[in-house]
Amino acid sequence: MGLTQEVVGFVSRTRYRDIQPEVIRLAQGFILDGLGVTLAGSTEKGSRILQGHVRQIGGRGEAMVVGAGFLAPSAKAALANGASGHAMDYDDTQLSTSKESVYGLLTHPTVPVLSAVLAVGEKEKISGQDFLLAYILGVEVECRIADAINPRHYQSGFHSTATIGGLGAAMAVGKLLGLKEEPLARTLGIAASMASGLRENFGTMTKPLHAGRAAENGVTAAQLAEKGFTSAVNILEAKRGFFNAMAGGYDETKIVGCLGHPYFMQEPGISIKPYPSGSLSHPAQDLILDLVKMHDLHGGDIESIEVGTNSNVPNALIYPMPKTALEGKFSIPFCMAVGVLERKAGIAQFTDRKVRDPKVVELMKRVTL
Amino acid sequence: MGLTQEVVGFVSRTRYRDIQPEVIRLAQGFILDGLGVTLAGSTEKGSRILQGHVRQIGGRGEAMVVGAGFLAPSAKAALANGASGHAMDYDDTQLSTSKESVYGLLTHPTVPVLSAVLAVGEKEKISGQDFLLAYILGVEVECRIADAINPRHYQSGFHSTATIGGLGAAMAVGKLLGLKEEPLARTLGIAASMASGLRENFGTMTKPLHAGRAAENGVTAAQLAEKGFTSAVNILEAKRGFFNAMAGGYDETKIVGCLGHPYFMQEPGISIKPYPSGSLSHPAQDLILDLVKMHDLHGGDIESIEVGTNSNVPNALIYPMPKTALEGKFSIPFCMAVGVLERKAGIAQFTDRKVRDPKVVELMKRVTL
Repeated sequence: MGLTQEVVGFVSRTRYRDIQPEVIRLAQGFILDGLGVTLAGSTEKGSRILQGHVRQIGGRGEAMVVGAGFLAPSAKAALANGASGHAMDYDDTQLSTSKESVYGLLTHPTVPVLSAVLAVGEKEKISGQDFLLAYILGVEVECRIADAINPRHYQSGFHSTATIGGLGAAMAVGKLLGLKEEPLARTLGIAASMASGLRENFGTMTKPLHAGRAAENGVTAAQLAEKGFTSAVNILEAKRGFFNAMAGGYDETKIVGCLGHPYFMQEPGISIKPYPSGSLSHPAQDLILDLVKMHDLHGGDIESIEVGTNSNVPNALIYPMPKTALEGKFSIPFCMAVGVLERKAGIAQFTDRKVRDPKVVELMKRVTL
Repeated sequence: MGLTQEVVGFVSRTRYRDIQPEVIRLAQGFILDGLGVTLAGSTEKGSRILQGHVRQIGGRGEAMVVGAGFLAPSAKAALANGASGHAMDYDDTQLSTSKESVYGLLTHPTVPVLSAVLAVGEKEKISGQDFLLAYILGVEVECRIADAINPRHYQSGFHSTATIGGLGAAMAVGKLLGLKEEPLARTLGIAASMASGLRENFGTMTKPLHAGRAAENGVTAAQLAEKGFTSAVNILEAKRGFFNAMAGGYDETKIVGCLGHPYFMQEPGISIKPYPSGSLSHPAQDLILDLVKMHDLHGGDIESIEVGTNSNVPNALIYPMPKTALEGKFSIPFCMAVGVLERKAGIAQFTDRKVRDPKVVELMKRVTL
């Protein structure tokens, strides 16, 4: 049996009653967090531009654009909501299955899947159980594919939440629409030919757009497959398919036999973010917040801040001297400086004004990585 | 000056009066061919599914969906028309600048750019000169990027018409909208994060979808950039950018100083297809049609057909025993068999019925590659 077949077989076969109560409870928590960060992120400037774009295009009022008060076609609601959900970089992160995992390959799993399921679920008037089941299966597929793909994917510049998020969203929507194995395989084939997203766009509005596009692509792929649109039915493992083109390969043992055994959200788990910034900044943020509080430190007390780390961190947190809030989310100097000066790392800290505040800028210069 | 800057500078700077009459004449021919193959392709089954999808979504009536008789938002008209244009694999092909070029890297340049320019041009009510200028610049950017990208791009599974077609479409629409260099660079940054398309989907409806998506992505990227949406402004050459993620690199000398000197459509040129099938099949089709006519050969006269070729051909024409017309377009045995039996290789030959015709199937078995 091919890998694509294994994935679509799992999605097609699994029923709500097969899911353990613990997984349902975990999923409810991630969904609640996802809704919260989507609502918060819907007020960001990039989100507002996208909402305006979706409103301008118009079309059938199938699903709510969160925080904007109008209905849009389900694929376009998924686009806007997915971008809102990732706008603050505040959405959850899958953990790694081994110490050697390359951090950046792991996705922010909830937002692409949740945005797609919300939009199509509203259109199709599904039950809460169908909603939970589709969400759980989409996240499971997404996390396993991200866990298995060769590190070249992330290292060379692809954003896994964008590329692999769309595959998870596609499987979730396919499940919602009740597609059988063959159309589910075509859903994956179409979605894989829509997968994209480059990391050079981190720190700009295009990073959140990636999560929105993943959700939109998942919706579109499943809707086309449902109508009989054809594609390859072995897209993951094929010679000219997803893993080979996007990464030069994958580790089959991270998927085969792993889907739902246990669910990824149980083991190793999915982490809800404490701060609205790139998750690689969090350990240093935890530490600096503890230190300034413990020793009652103020900006003037500090000569320099040295942050020790491995090579993954500067490869993801790419702004030594950020100019915007979006860049500040990917900047160790900003996260350190604002942590010292404000003793917090919440939504109110990640603003353009704070990033450009002379006191913050002055302290950023004393941070080395 | 960075490469992205070089590209957007060229697009921003070039005016209609800078274009030589010969280039205008060539462009008019390619546009006419592009319109013809789009109109023909609009009747294909995959095109009809996409037209239905676009109609169902609804939205502002900005641009005509060719062959379907209704208006749609410009991005969605571009999607449907781009897919129609590539549906028969009958659209033009850029030629190579050197003998060593890897064939498949070269795009079918007209359809993604033309579909995007048509849709936005109708919405914006542009002049014929603006239409020609945007088309010519989009095609130029597309052909140069395709000429420069590392062969890994195509060899590992990416479909260049899909991935690079979207960049050409983006530059064409950006020019139409009158964007200056900085928003043009953001247009390219957004479009590059939408670039996708896998070759395993050749022989299915998803291959034409690639060209439609390229056109749609180009429209969307330029419209978002116009509204102030941000992205990286060095996406082509950046470490985590287009060339590195999608191909592991590129040959800068194929772009720098080459844009418009001369235009790619002049030298080496763009080829209008004689047959609605994968262009690598054309030399063998030319030959078999000549042979059967010259020697008045019939199916019964033929014991076997041996086609000599290099490794590029079986890597692109991947169906030894096709079952559908779409697969037949990528099948040397079918092209040879139908050429012998019908002495033609037109639209009427590439049908599901002919591919499954017992006489054709019988003769296909006697073809070796």
